[in-house]
Amino acid sequence: MCQLLAMNCNVPTDIVFSFTGFALRGGSTDTHHDGWGIAFFEGAGVRHFVDHQAAVTSPIAELIKRYPIKSKNVIAHIRKATQGRVALENCHPFVRELWGRYWVFAHNGDLKHFFPVLDGAFRPVGDTDSERAFCFLLQELRARFGDVAPPLAQLRAALAELVSGIAAHGAFNLMLSDGSALFAHCSTRLCYVVRQYPFVTAQLSDEDLNVDFSQVTTPDDRVAIIVTEPLTTNERWTEFQPGELKVFVDGQPLP
Amino acid sequence: MCQLLAMNCNVPTDIVFSFTGFALRGGSTDTHHDGWGIAFFEGAGVRHFVDHQAAVTSPIAELIKRYPIKSKNVIAHIRKATQGRVALENCHPFVRELWGRYWVFAHNGDLKHFFPVLDGAFRPVGDTDSERAFCFLLQELRARFGDVAPPLAQLRAALAELVSGIAAHGAFNLMLSDGSALFAHCSTRLCYVVRQYPFVTAQLSDEDLNVDFSQVTTPDDRVAIIVTEPLTTNERWTEFQPGELKVFVDGQPLP
Repeated sequence: MCQLLAMNCNVPTDIVFSFTGFALRGGSTDTHHDGWGIAFFEGAGVRHFVDHQAAVTSPIAELIKRYPIKSKNVIAHIRKATQGRVALENCHPFVRELWGRYWVFAHNGDLKHFFPVLDGAFRPVGDTDSERAFCFLLQELRARFGDVAPPLAQLRAALAELVSGIAAHGAFNLMLSDGSALFAHCSTRLCYVVRQYPFVTAQLSDEDLNVDFSQVTTPDDRVAIIVTEPLTTNERWTEFQPGELKVFVDGQPLP
Repeated sequence: MCQLLAMNCNVPTDIVFSFTGFALRGGSTDTHHDGWGIAFFEGAGVRHFVDHQAAVTSPIAELIKRYPIKSKNVIAHIRKATQGRVALENCHPFVRELWGRYWVFAHNGDLKHFFPVLDGAFRPVGDTDSERAFCFLLQELRARFGDVAPPLAQLRAALAELVSGIAAHGAFNLMLSDGSALFAHCSTRLCYVVRQYPFVTAQLSDEDLNVDFSQVTTPDDRVAIIVTEPLTTNERWTEFQPGELKVFVDGQPLP
């Protein structure tokens, strides 16, 4: 199994603090050393970094810990291979374009006997169950809505149905974003925290590091962090229910 | 106009030396400071770095100059905006998937009145003529060959025809790769050099830096570098003919 991290905010925010703790699980405080990746939306564009080295030793992970890329939607993943070789093309997150937007996807879990019919519009480059699931999701969204993106409520309903069908094949914890909303589905384990005014000092669980968010934010900032295991020891993390799909917009889950 | 750099090799090779000279044109020895990008194939996977900062000041460009990523196919671009805002989504190279392979594309030139009919399979995320051309190329390749990639000779012939049609709209110097072959088309200016045994010491034009390739290669290595303007002062660069599409495989142009 792998670990997932995502961030959704109402203003572009850097993920340096949370990524620093998360990256340690890629070979130091945990055993996820079969690659890692992170994608940042910046406007309509995406910065996409993947590496098949362990996150703790990767020079690119080092850069991201030091270089504050500001984004409203970020998805990161550290990999412990279950299906698919240790290779760059199997590193999450995956990126595809649909409806003139980039979509970013990462998955934690293991889908058994999941070989959906793919019509060729989106085809996996690597050999993971995860990329197959991503290609299938986009294919089905396009089949339902044609060439025009639907309103968010319709998209959410369609994803809930599609994701629950895929989750019948096994654990399907996922993060998906088109740069405006962040979709997070929990099969087995996910939790989130919303950081907003009044901001506190947060203490990383994976390293002796803390940050006083009140010093680096404005009272209007709001940031949701969604992750496999809580990243800090002194914040209140909310657990997802198994089978739950949450949609985060502007730093908070939609009702 | 922008500048292009590509590398095609028979064994995975790092591009640190050539990129170091090239990146200086992104704001130092030349005026291409509206962003830059580079993509490296590694197996079937792609590492894709884009930045809307000038290449000379970008921390990510600095990383690439120091971190020897080895690849058989690399495409890089520094941008001087002609069409499209200075924004991440307008930075080349662009990446899409077709036939279960990633395709990487970068363009130097300016296409006038180029608004092809796009059927929705590949749609631009940004607002450049270049990304429109890339989407159109992939759409037409898929329309001709369906869901199965054709042999290289057929692909080359189709691309030659499609590219020449697009080039009727203006300058269309381009680099395109699917990770196995590198296609380079010249409208106005491109040149290349093949580095092979016996290797010499090369001297960068843009910086007082040289490298003795005989120290860092084996006699079997072969590397083609294709670029807008020659990068070195003491190698023999071959100019493309306007209208010429060359295909590089294993470090040399096909006949």
